[in-house]
Order: sequence, then C-alpha cells, then structure tokens
Amino acid sequence: MTEPFPGARPTLEAVAARAGVSRATASRVVNGGAGVRQPLVEKVQRAVEELGYVPNHAARTLVTRRTGAVAVIIAEPEIRIFSDPFFSQQIRGISKELTAHDYQLVLLLLEGPGDYDRIARYLAGGHVDGALAFSLHTDDPIPEITRRAGMPTVYGGRPSWTSAPDHRAVPYVDADNRGGAREAVRYLWDLGRRRIAHIAGPRDQTSAVDRLDGYRDVLLDEDPALIAEGAFTEESGARAMTELLERCPELDAVFAANDLMASGALRVLKERGIAVPDEVALVGFDDMDSVAAVTDPPLTTVQQDIEGQGRLMARLLLRGLDREREGERAPASVITPTTLVRRASA
Amino acid sequence: MTEPFPGARPTLEAVAARAGVSRATASRVVNGGAGVRQPLVEKVQRAVEELGYVPNHAARTLVTRRTGAVAVIIAEPEIRIFSDPFFSQQIRGISKELTAHDYQLVLLLLEGPGDYDRIARYLAGGHVDGALAFSLHTDDPIPEITRRAGMPTVYGGRPSWTSAPDHRAVPYVDADNRGGAREAVRYLWDLGRRRIAHIAGPRDQTSAVDRLDGYRDVLLDEDPALIAEGAFTEESGARAMTELLERCPELDAVFAANDLMASGALRVLKERGIAVPDEVALVGFDDMDSVAAVTDPPLTTVQQDIEGQGRLMARLLLRGLDREREGERAPASVITPTTLVRRASA
Repeated sequence: MTEPFPGARPTLEAVAARAGVSRATASRVVNGGAGVRQPLVEKVQRAVEELGYVPNHAARTLVTRRTGAVAVIIAEPEIRIFSDPFFSQQIRGISKELTAHDYQLVLLLLEGPGDYDRIARYLAGGHVDGALAFSLHTDDPIPEITRRAGMPTVYGGRPSWTSAPDHRAVPYVDADNRGGAREAVRYLWDLGRRRIAHIAGPRDQTSAVDRLDGYRDVLLDEDPALIAEGAFTEESGARAMTELLERCPELDAVFAANDLMASGALRVLKERGIAVPDEVALVGFDDMDSVAAVTDPPLTTVQQDIEGQGRLMARLLLRGLDREREGERAPASVITPTTLVRRASA
Repeated sequence: MTEPFPGARPTLEAVAARAGVSRATASRVVNGGAGVRQPLVEKVQRAVEELGYVPNHAARTLVTRRTGAVAVIIAEPEIRIFSDPFFSQQIRGISKELTAHDYQLVLLLLEGPGDYDRIARYLAGGHVDGALAFSLHTDDPIPEITRRAGMPTVYGGRPSWTSAPDHRAVPYVDADNRGGAREAVRYLWDLGRRRIAHIAGPRDQTSAVDRLDGYRDVLLDEDPALIAEGAFTEESGARAMTELLERCPELDAVFAANDLMASGALRVLKERGIAVPDEVALVGFDDMDSVAAVTDPPLTTVQQDIEGQGRLMARLLLRGLDREREGERAPASVITPTTLVRRASA
C-alpha cells in the first residue's frame, strides 16, 4: 500500500501542548530559555526531542540573514562539470574549507543559459549567505545576478570586467596565468624550438586570454598562423592540432592552454606518427591529477594548485562574511603562483 | 584599492521613493498590482527595474512553503561523487527533469558522516521543497533527517527498511537488481561455466544485497569461497579478484556487482595472464557509459538506465509535491527493467 509523504513538520503549538505549557513559554525555551524555570525548560526540551520539533530557520533567516550555507555556481552546463576534472578539484578544495567552518556547500547546477533566471530567484530567496562563482565568460549574467541579490561573492578566475579601471571591485582567486604561460614558452624556446604553436582557450575567458598574452610576451613577432583556438576540452585540442598541422607542418613545439587540450593534441600527433618530444615538443597547463601524469608520454605542464584555489575562494568569502557583519572592507584578490613541471613531452 | 562586497539589496522603501508613491502602493504593485491605477503601476515597475529590486522570497516562503528548489543528497563523500560516473549519470537525469519543470537542482555535498547535522539544519531551514536521496547505506541518518524536516523525499535505490512489513512507506526508484543478476549468472551457466564467482558490493547497500540474492537464485548450492565483497570501486574489484584467485584458482567465470569492480577484476586477470573470456568469462552490472564499452575486452554487463532512473526520481517527487498540496497520496515506487548486453568479456 502506498502511504502519504512524511507528515507535516511538528509545530511549536504541538510542543507546548505536549509539555503542558503555554505557547509563549515553549517559544522562550526554544529561543534560549531566558526567564523560564528549569523544570519547565526540561519539559519543553523533552517535548522537542520526542516530537522531533525543529525551529523554523527560514523565519530566523529573515532576522539574522544567516543560513550557514554557501552556493557554488559554475558557469558551465552540468555535463561539463562532471567531465572536466578541473571543476571537481576546485569543488574539493571549497568543500574541505566550508566543512572545516561548518558551512554547507550548495552546488547549483544548470543545463544552459536559460537557467540563469532560476539561479537568480534562488539566490534572491535568501537560501545562502554567499556565493562562489567560477568559469565565468564575458557578458556572463552571474555578476549582475549576485549584485541584485546583494549576495557577497568571490570569483574563481579573474572576471573580465576587472580590466576596467575599478579593477579590484570584487575579490577573486586566480593563478598567475600570464606568468605561467611565459615560463612554458620560454622553456620551449630555450630547448631550441623556433616554430612554437599555441592552442588557446576560448577568448571569452580571461584565463585563456592571459595565457595567450604570456605566449605573446615571449614570441613578440609571433605568426598568427601558429595560433588556434580550442574550448578547453580534449576534443577541441585534437581539432586545433589538426588545424595547426595543416597550416604549419613545420611547427616544432606546441603550448596548449590546458592539459585536456594538450592530451587531445597528443592523440593527433601520435595518430600522424609525429614523435613527441623529438619532432614536436608539447607543454600543457594545469597539471591535472588524472591527465598530465598519465598520458604517453606524460606531459610537461604549468602546475597550478587548483584545489588550493578552491580553498582560498572559500576562505576569502567566509572572511568577507565576517567583515561584512563588522562593516569592514571585503578582502583583496589573490593570485597564486605557478610552477613548470618537467615530464617527457618536452 | 579593495572595495566592499556589492552593496545591500535595494529595499521596497527605495522603490517607493524613486517611484514617488507610498510604500503601501509600491507593495501592492510588487504583489500583483490589484487596485492600483495603471500610471502608478508603471512608475513602480520602472523603479523596480532601475533599482534591480527583488522581492524577498524568503518571506514568501514562510507563507507558501515553495522555494522552487529540490535538494539532491548522495550518501557518499564528495570525492566519490566526482569519481564514480554512476552519480553523474543519475544527476544528469535529475537535472534534465528538474530543469524541464523550472526547479533548481541544489546538490548538497558532504565530506563525511560528521556533516549530517549540517545537512539536517539546511533541510529544516526550508530552503528546498523536497529532496532526492541516493546511495543510502543501512542505518543512514538521511531518512530520519528528512522525516524530521517534514521534507517530501524520493529515494534512489530501495531503502533497506523497506524489507519491513510497511515496505512501501516511501517512494523509491530502483533497477530490477535481483532479476538482472539472475539473468547474468544464468547466461554464464548456459555458456557451460560451472565455477562462477561473485564480486559483491558492500552488504550495507540493498543494490548489493539484491544482486547477491539474484546470484544465489541460480546457484542454489553456491560455494561461499566463490563470493568476495568489494566496495563498488575499481580498486576494491581488483582486490576481490586477487582474493578469489587465491581461494579458487579453478574458477571459470566472475559476475561482478558493478562495472567498476568488473574493470578492476579484469585488470588483475590480465596482469596474471589469464585469458578473458576463454579461461575466465566476466560479466558486470550497470553498462556505465565510460566503463563497460571501453575496457579491453569490452564488458558483457547488465544494463540499467541510470539517467532514466534519475529522471523518474525527479518526476515522482514533483508529482508528490503537487499531490501533497491537494492532500493526495504519494506516488508508488518504480522498479525499472534491466537488459543483458553481450560484449566480448563473456
């Protein structure tokens, strides 16, 4: 036989009735017990326990604006979040830090751009105290949504509007994308490579733009034919590599803007019988757990501490929430250093 | 220079002031506009738009108890959720169905058992209308937490307490685990295999218990030495296979309770130079996208529609929420069929 869903939440009235006290007394006990005699406090507490009564936190939220929860919003469809280990590593760092401070991580998933209205409603509903947003694109609606919701927010990756003069208006955490790219390309140059191609990320993301700038810092008179754009996925890296080989068959090195695209490029190079690193040296970016060390040959890559960035984002937000209550300024942004990790691919 | 977090949410007072109307008029417009002259309605609407005013939904929630959001709780640490494709496939189905009905998916992540108190507070806080819970273990605190929070809940996988006489007290969605397992073992038997081992899942999960029961349905006088227990991970499948080969070197077939454990078993068999399927035939369970078809040889396995189960869970919950408002009964549970998919491993 089917049964109804579990019954309605027990009310304060029910607690008062079971304890044999007035509603006002029950209310005082539930809210701290000030001015209530100890035997009555115990009676009410017993009734609370027996009925499984839970005070209405939504009502409290109206007063304290505290939910003990933080939203994580990734500006990518749900399907990418579970297929790109970058996101799980960043979430891992966030989860550890929030858990250490007894905050609940609330991951808001979306299928596509049509879902931003719903995200906006949820944030405006006061169900979380703050938000962490990452993988933003140019013209992403998330900053406007969090602003309208009055929601303290820390960004993962430098938001594009920070290129404007008021460029530290929001706190963010990012790797030194430009410096890391510079080091990777200089390394290839020092190996004697002179036709160094670049597989860039999507130009509507600052991490991709900054890595491209780092590449250009070293190769001041770079040949535009040596640059192809991917979408930070394995598949797009393979496509970009194919394109580059058609345009510049004489290339002797590739710097890919992330490890997934580097592994796609490696697949194409192997299919064509091009020896890595002897004929074409290959460098990635990220040093992703499940990618860089397991390709054949393993990838030389620019390491960034993805999990650490997640922890930092959470830490900045929690500090910001504390300071907000005290009327202080929000914390400043943080740029984390990168390190070139040398493996067999270059 | 650092700046404060984005400013406070614009108030209804600010809207009224900007529109040049009383707070009461502004409030009436924001709540539907009944009894307000059209020119004033337009003035207020313009002020709402210009200020980016959002009505306080938390306050409305107290009245309507509707948030437009559904929590997904997976009774596993965050690290497993991102490493086992079963969860992402189930979440994919849930996400598609909730999005189609304009509900926000709120994934509540946890690091370990110590985090259940926090989940309980979040659910009791009224921040979601219902919950979907899966991968429960025996004595999992989630059912009690959702009951106390008065939270309509649909389970993924048969909850263990449903073995009791009131066994359909909660709606759940599950595959026909026992029937699927029976078909797999009968198939191995029909191939002429007589020493069929089983790598079972953790015995505190009903899916593992039901698959073991299906195995026993066929091999009524099964040898206990032919059964080893894993934890539904690749690693644990490898360990169980090693154990089985030590105890019963003459085994000629293995039925693993999921594809990840089957792929771990396959790794061990290959390391030992044991030919699959010639010497040992191998069957898995799930037909997981990224596992079963890509092993070498590809896995014969019991297919279940994991994404479809996610969709069904969401559909049952949303139907339940509608019925709850109308005072009707909750929907019944659903058992989805399984199909044996034959590939090279058996």
